[in-house]
Amino acid sequence: MNIASIEAGASDARLREIYDTAAKLFHSQGYARTSMSDVARALHLTKAGLYHHIESKEQLLFGVINYGLDLLEEQVVRSVMTMREPADRLRCLIRGHIQLILQSRFREITVILHENRTLKGALRAQVDARKKRYILLLEEILTDLRRRRPHAGVSPHVGAFALLGMINWIYQWYRPSGAVSQEELAEEFTRLFLNGYCGAAPESGVPLSHRRERR
Amino acid sequence: MNIASIEAGASDARLREIYDTAAKLFHSQGYARTSMSDVARALHLTKAGLYHHIESKEQLLFGVINYGLDLLEEQVVRSVMTMREPADRLRCLIRGHIQLILQSRFREITVILHENRTLKGALRAQVDARKKRYILLLEEILTDLRRRRPHAGVSPHVGAFALLGMINWIYQWYRPSGAVSQEELAEEFTRLFLNGYCGAAPESGVPLSHRRERR
Repeated sequence: MNIASIEAGASDARLREIYDTAAKLFHSQGYARTSMSDVARALHLTKAGLYHHIESKEQLLFGVINYGLDLLEEQVVRSVMTMREPADRLRCLIRGHIQLILQSRFREITVILHENRTLKGALRAQVDARKKRYILLLEEILTDLRRRRPHAGVSPHVGAFALLGMINWIYQWYRPSGAVSQEELAEEFTRLFLNGYCGAAPESGVPLSHRRERR
Repeated sequence: MNIASIEAGASDARLREIYDTAAKLFHSQGYARTSMSDVARALHLTKAGLYHHIESKEQLLFGVINYGLDLLEEQVVRSVMTMREPADRLRCLIRGHIQLILQSRFREITVILHENRTLKGALRAQVDARKKRYILLLEEILTDLRRRRPHAGVSPHVGAFALLGMINWIYQWYRPSGAVSQEELAEEFTRLFLNGYCGAAPESGVPLSHRRERR
């Protein structure tokens, strides 16, 4: 490892520390109410020291969101990409995404991902494009799944956002210390979604097993 | 109708107008950045005139949230309560809840419902108790459903929050002018959830239809 890459590594670690701290502040007191001075103070930096790393508060928010999307790529997308069978890919995505948002260190970052109304113009467009790639990956998996299995007539588009809603809502209600383990949560979400998306819909009010028997 | 009730009606209408306006401002510029003067100005009231109706900004937020929960009760819970069959109740709840959050007038109010970290103490506890009643109703429906139909082994608790996540996330992605009609959205969400919650889970990677045939 040469000096340039050691310095790059140190600088990356420093940036991640800045993003972690900023995310906690943005989350606890709101983006609007958090000043660059607050962030500098929490990091034991001077304001000039913080501006040495980050040029504006908007760039800081942009950095935090991109850091969150980096984590999503490293911890979820990368593993999904090694798999071919769509049901395996979907299980891996659900499990990995839930794991990511329940890691206490990243909790605030994953929440801030969805509060990006504050970003404008080119920065907003860049973030939206990265988010869209994830949604397209999920839609691709759901399209493949429809080709290989019976399906309930739910479109990949609606299915993708239904699943993201289930997962991204977790931070509103789930307590890791409560009655449902993270493992059970991932298991039940996978079962609910995979079962709902694949297979015939029990729409008639007659139990599914009866309907099947009559065929 | 006597004079007292005419006055009460006028005052209710005035309050709803105040809540509507406050919700739009809280949503567009954030609760922290919105002052009582901003709200008064948007309503063409003096600040004193606004304080005649509402005693503080926190009370105003509390009022907006309760107004949102009133709407949920009037437009969703009331119809669900007239039904007995759990699958019918669930369909009615999903359809009504989606309808409510997609009514453009109430859009901001239903978003603010979930941003209640700003409320503290007794006000927060009151709001949480009202929200909890809705969740308990949904869990009750899901518990009844498990008794009457085959089920996929998803608990009523996890199922309830998965469904609320699907629905409450809609405002993040759904555009009424897009390719999916509101009717289709409600239909696909109902099918996805009901199908996922009821019936055996295709966990093995073998298509559901094959597994059924082998039994």
